[in-house]
Amino acid sequence: MVIPSLSDIQTAHSRIRSFIHRTPVLTSTSLNRILGAEFFFKCENFQKVGAFKYRGATNAILSLTPAELEKGVGTHSSGNHAAALALAAAMAGVPAYIVMPHTAPAIKKAAVAGYGAHIVFCEPTQEEREKTMMKVQEETGCTFIHPYDRFEIIAGQGTAALELLEEIPTVDIIMAPVGGGGLLSGTAIAAKGLKPDIQVWAGEPQNADDAFKSFYSGELHPSINPKTIADGLLTSLSELTFKAIRENADAILLAPEQLIMDALNLILQRMKIVIEPSSAVPLAALMAGPEKHWKGKKIGIILSGGNLDMAMFASQIKPD
Amino acid sequence: MVIPSLSDIQTAHSRIRSFIHRTPVLTSTSLNRILGAEFFFKCENFQKVGAFKYRGATNAILSLTPAELEKGVGTHSSGNHAAALALAAAMAGVPAYIVMPHTAPAIKKAAVAGYGAHIVFCEPTQEEREKTMMKVQEETGCTFIHPYDRFEIIAGQGTAALELLEEIPTVDIIMAPVGGGGLLSGTAIAAKGLKPDIQVWAGEPQNADDAFKSFYSGELHPSINPKTIADGLLTSLSELTFKAIRENADAILLAPEQLIMDALNLILQRMKIVIEPSSAVPLAALMAGPEKHWKGKKIGIILSGGNLDMAMFASQIKPD
Repeated sequence: MVIPSLSDIQTAHSRIRSFIHRTPVLTSTSLNRILGAEFFFKCENFQKVGAFKYRGATNAILSLTPAELEKGVGTHSSGNHAAALALAAAMAGVPAYIVMPHTAPAIKKAAVAGYGAHIVFCEPTQEEREKTMMKVQEETGCTFIHPYDRFEIIAGQGTAALELLEEIPTVDIIMAPVGGGGLLSGTAIAAKGLKPDIQVWAGEPQNADDAFKSFYSGELHPSINPKTIADGLLTSLSELTFKAIRENADAILLAPEQLIMDALNLILQRMKIVIEPSSAVPLAALMAGPEKHWKGKKIGIILSGGNLDMAMFASQIKPD
Repeated sequence: MVIPSLSDIQTAHSRIRSFIHRTPVLTSTSLNRILGAEFFFKCENFQKVGAFKYRGATNAILSLTPAELEKGVGTHSSGNHAAALALAAAMAGVPAYIVMPHTAPAIKKAAVAGYGAHIVFCEPTQEEREKTMMKVQEETGCTFIHPYDRFEIIAGQGTAALELLEEIPTVDIIMAPVGGGGLLSGTAIAAKGLKPDIQVWAGEPQNADDAFKSFYSGELHPSINPKTIADGLLTSLSELTFKAIRENADAILLAPEQLIMDALNLILQRMKIVIEPSSAVPLAALMAGPEKHWKGKKIGIILSGGNLDMAMFASQIKPD
């Protein structure tokens, strides 16, 4: 089991850089004042399809052989990875097959269909998704692209940290949210490779704390019935991302639901940018900790995406 | 009655440029594709206090004499102008007196108080506001800074268009929302001064269509019982802004409430930036018109502010 190195991430960056947005690193004086540290936000909410996932999907597709490319790519997902793979495949001119539960929200079906992907509906269970995906692979010969359990995906996701540290090399702590661990793996490898004394921390919802348990116990824990507003972080680590994270990350901090909403509101209202709840988890995890060792530090945070479900958000916020 | 010229706006810009944010001009491929034109958004939602009002307030304060400065500035408002004047006064080290109805939302009181202004509460009627303001002026000797009926305010607001056209000189049409007319006046004077063949259009809520009536009838109409979600656009033109707009703007387009919400959602979801409803009015007005003469054109739009009331917004949006 081989995890990518810094140089694999640098190679991925050369490969994808002309296809992705170089997203801005934003700062906010008022947020710094409120929280007592100096924050640098890498805005992957402005990435194509509104999420960092476009980096990994593009790198995975551009790493295929011509014979593989011809038969296309597939995945089972209804989230940002599906949209990212669909658009990256369209850009490369190859077919994409997306297996999706028929219960997926209409807006997500429309997004993927809008990028020209073939949608294959299935019953909404993990077993049915995998069975349907296998059938599609048999019929089309397409390459299955897992959302995080893949070398090229991890290498691609690491390019966001690469750009952040190229722009702000003085960062003391770099943070990413953790779900399946693709972004955190790439971020940790890139950051430790470029700057061995940097601290790499992750934020995870307290209600989906499988990565936390895995990291501190040394044994891979599954994600059981996670219930969090950070719906991009419901998945569990794979053996591959677990290894990358154990070898390169320094800490996983937990964020309670209320602080995830508070951090989300803080970023919307102070920075005037739209992020999805998963992106607010690192900041929420900092706010949650009893010991604020991070006060006064320079902290880079990867804002993972901007696909906020407005109706869901509306149902959560409190009037003033 | 003298309105500012292009050179007054250029002078204002030299005066304030080191105190304001040079806000970015953002574009969105997907929004251009959906609407069929090329849009350039001047992001005053990222301006200090989250609104273009900081430009005019800063210019007004920096234009006072030392004797006037010493006695401070005042205004009656509970909106962006109050916050802008409070912060600009704090930056200049002079006192600010803000007359506010005691019924103003707690969050607005807190914002103004947070900038160190003296808040003077009054009953929530226009008459009481003006009476209280006069009393404060008598007691303190402060200079009353009207939110738009003032030469230096108009000149200051025009600097946003100056920056936009400096960056994108090929714009065919430039648009701003219109309420009291300070932003539209400055925008129109700057744009026509720099580029006489440019079209200057305004967007106004259909439910607050006093500027529309004034512009096309040639007589100043008051704003009577306006009811719109675009709460920054409830005021009427003054003689000064009416003159500036009649001499320099080409058209005022009306936007129905539903399209204001649709345009707001489009910008939040496609551009991942937070704007207030007033900022969505120009785009909504374009979407409303039966004839789309603007299709295929390069259109500059000033996004006036980002102080979106999340609870209000939540109560308006429809689930998918």
